[in-house]
Amino acid sequence: MSRVGIVDQSTSKFTKDTLLSVEELACEPCKEILERHKNTDLKIDSVFLSTTADVQYGSTIVSEYLGLKPRISQRLDNLCNSGSNAIVSAYSMIKSGLCKNALVVGADIKQTKGSQLVWDISRGSFTLPVYWAALFAKVHMRRYGTTEEQMASVTVKNRKNAYLNRNALFRKKISVKDVMDSKKLVEPLKLLDCSYVCNGASAILLSNEADSKMYTDFPVWIEGIGSSVEAASFSNVSSDLSSIHSTKSASDMAYSMTNITPKQIDVAELHDAFTIMEIMAYEDLGFCKKGDGGKFVSQNDISINPRGGLLGTGHPLGATGVAQAVEISEQLKGLAGNRQIKDCKMGLVHNMSAAGSSSLVLIISKD
Amino acid sequence: MSRVGIVDQSTSKFTKDTLLSVEELACEPCKEILERHKNTDLKIDSVFLSTTADVQYGSTIVSEYLGLKPRISQRLDNLCNSGSNAIVSAYSMIKSGLCKNALVVGADIKQTKGSQLVWDISRGSFTLPVYWAALFAKVHMRRYGTTEEQMASVTVKNRKNAYLNRNALFRKKISVKDVMDSKKLVEPLKLLDCSYVCNGASAILLSNEADSKMYTDFPVWIEGIGSSVEAASFSNVSSDLSSIHSTKSASDMAYSMTNITPKQIDVAELHDAFTIMEIMAYEDLGFCKKGDGGKFVSQNDISINPRGGLLGTGHPLGATGVAQAVEISEQLKGLAGNRQIKDCKMGLVHNMSAAGSSSLVLIISKD
Repeated sequence: MSRVGIVDQSTSKFTKDTLLSVEELACEPCKEILERHKNTDLKIDSVFLSTTADVQYGSTIVSEYLGLKPRISQRLDNLCNSGSNAIVSAYSMIKSGLCKNALVVGADIKQTKGSQLVWDISRGSFTLPVYWAALFAKVHMRRYGTTEEQMASVTVKNRKNAYLNRNALFRKKISVKDVMDSKKLVEPLKLLDCSYVCNGASAILLSNEADSKMYTDFPVWIEGIGSSVEAASFSNVSSDLSSIHSTKSASDMAYSMTNITPKQIDVAELHDAFTIMEIMAYEDLGFCKKGDGGKFVSQNDISINPRGGLLGTGHPLGATGVAQAVEISEQLKGLAGNRQIKDCKMGLVHNMSAAGSSSLVLIISKD
Repeated sequence: MSRVGIVDQSTSKFTKDTLLSVEELACEPCKEILERHKNTDLKIDSVFLSTTADVQYGSTIVSEYLGLKPRISQRLDNLCNSGSNAIVSAYSMIKSGLCKNALVVGADIKQTKGSQLVWDISRGSFTLPVYWAALFAKVHMRRYGTTEEQMASVTVKNRKNAYLNRNALFRKKISVKDVMDSKKLVEPLKLLDCSYVCNGASAILLSNEADSKMYTDFPVWIEGIGSSVEAASFSNVSSDLSSIHSTKSASDMAYSMTNITPKQIDVAELHDAFTIMEIMAYEDLGFCKKGDGGKFVSQNDISINPRGGLLGTGHPLGATGVAQAVEISEQLKGLAGNRQIKDCKMGLVHNMSAAGSSSLVLIISKD
C-alpha cells in the first residue's frame, strides 16, 4: 500500500487569553497551510477537528470558515489524546483510498471541560489531574529513588527549549531552584511540575504518497502507529503506578510495525503533562531501563521535546497531539529554524490521556 | 484489498424518556452483540462512539463499561450525520490494516444540544430544523406540484412500517387525514411531517473479510461509500432549495465506487427527518426523476424505510446513521423477522445533517 506523508504543518501561538472561539482558533494554522498551496490544484478531501471543547459540528464550521467543501468532515475527541487520534483517522482514511488527503486540526480553549475528569466518581473530589500525577510521582520516587530535583530538571530543560520557540507560552528560562520554590500543589508536585491548560491550535496536511511528493519537496512519512486504551477511570487504569501501561503497549505496537528500535529515534515529542510523566515515558518508550528515567533527563542522545513540550509550550488539550506532530515534521524537514536539530531522520510522537488511560505513539521518518 | 463486512448488529428500543446517560444507553446494543460472541475468541480492536451529546471521552467510558480494552477508541460527531461518519471511520481503520474489527455505536439523548443550530446566526431565531424543512417543502410544491397529501403519505407509510418494529417509538398506524389534521407548525409542515428527537442507541460490529466469515455465517459487505460536505450555515448550503446537493454528490460517489445503479437497490434507509426530505432523497439518490418524488411515495419496487424511518422509529441524532445500517444489515441477512423483505440483496443507507449541509451514502451488499 502507498505511504501516507505529512505535506505541510503549522501551529498558532499558544496563549493564556483569547477572544476567539474554538473554530476560529482552529482556522489560524489551517489558513497558513492553505495559503502556501493556493497556487496549486490542491483540493482538500477531508477535514478532521480534534477538540475537547463543547462544540457542535465543529469540523464543518471550520471547513466553511476556510472555504472548503471536503468529502468528509468529522470532529473527534478522546481527551488529551484527541490530536493523535485525529491523525490516525486521517491516516486510515487516506490509506484505505477513500480520500487523497486530509487536513487535521487540533484546537482547544483554556476553559474546556476536558481539563477536569468529572465522570470518574472513583476520584472523589480529586478531579484535577495533578492528584493522579502526584501518586505516580510518589511511587516512582519510592521504588526507584527518583528525586524532586530530577523532576524539576524536566521543566528546566523544556523551558530552555521553549525559549527558542516563538509560539510557546512560557519563554523564560528557569532553574531547578525556581521549580523547587514554586507553589506546592500536591506533595511532591509543585506548580512548575505541571503543564498549563491554554488556548492554541495546530494543523497538519496529510496526503497519499504520490500527492505528498507533488505538493512538497520535503515529505515525511507516518511509518508506525501504536495505540492502546486501558480504561476511563483511574482506579481501572493500572494496579502498578510505576509505569504507563498504555504507553508501553502502544510503543511496542509502533516499533513492531516499523521494525525500528528506540535507539534509532533522533527526536521525540513526549507527553510531559507533568514532569513525572516525561520521566516515565522515557522508560515505557524504551529509551532507558525501567527506573532509570530520573537520571535520563540529562542525556543528549535523543532530542526530547525540542519545541518545549507541554511544560514549556502550554497544553491546549485537543491540539497537543497535532502540535507534537507539527514539531516532529518541522524537525525532520529541517524547517525548525533556531531550534533545528542536526541530522535527524527518525521522529516519535507520544500522546496520552489522563493517567495513561490511553496512549498513542507515531513514528515518523524522513525517508 | 480485503472487504469490510458487517458481522453483527443490534439496536435498543427508542424512547421518549430515559434515566440512562448517553454512555449507558450506548452499552445496550453493544452488550447484545458481545453476548452473542462470548464463546468465541473475538477481541474488539476499536470502539467508535457517535453522539451529539455533550460528553467527554465517551468512547473510552463505553469501552470500560463493556469490559473492553481496545487499541483505539474515539468519539466523533458531525450532527445528524454522525452515525454513518463513525461507520466510515471504522471501515477505513479496518481497510488500512490498523484494526481487524470495530464496534461502532451511536447513542443520543432527547436533550442533546445537537437539535438546535445555534452557531448559525444567519438563521436568526429560526434555529429549529423545521424552519429550513418548510422552505424546502414550499419550493418543491411550487416547482413540481408536490402536495401536502403526498408528504403526509410518507409518514403514513413509515408509521405502517414502524408498526412492525418492536424498537420503534411510534407504533400506531395513522392516516393521511391524521397527518393533515395534526398541529400546524410552519406552513406547510404539520407536527406529523416531522421526526421526533428521542433517546436511543444502535451498534454494529465491522470486521475484515477473513474475520467476518469466521464470526458470522451471514456477513454483508460495505461496498460503496459516498460523502459530501456542503457548508455549516443554511445560507451557504445551496441557492437551489429543490434538491439536496450533498446527497446527489454522495450518491454519485457511492454508485461509481460499486458500479451499481439505483435500479439495483432492493432496500433503502433514507433520512426522513421531515417528509419532504424523503421525497427529495428519492430524486437525489436517482430512484426517480427530479420532480417525481411526490408520486414516488406510493411505489413498491424498492422497500424504503422498512424499520419505520426517522418518522416512525424516532431520531436519536447520533444513533440514526448506525440504526439505519443495522436495519439494512438485518434485512440483507434475513434477520428482520416480521418486517423481512423477500429476496433483498443490495441495500442503501442515506444519512444527512441539517438542511443537507452534509450527506453520506453507504451501499451494502449481500454477496
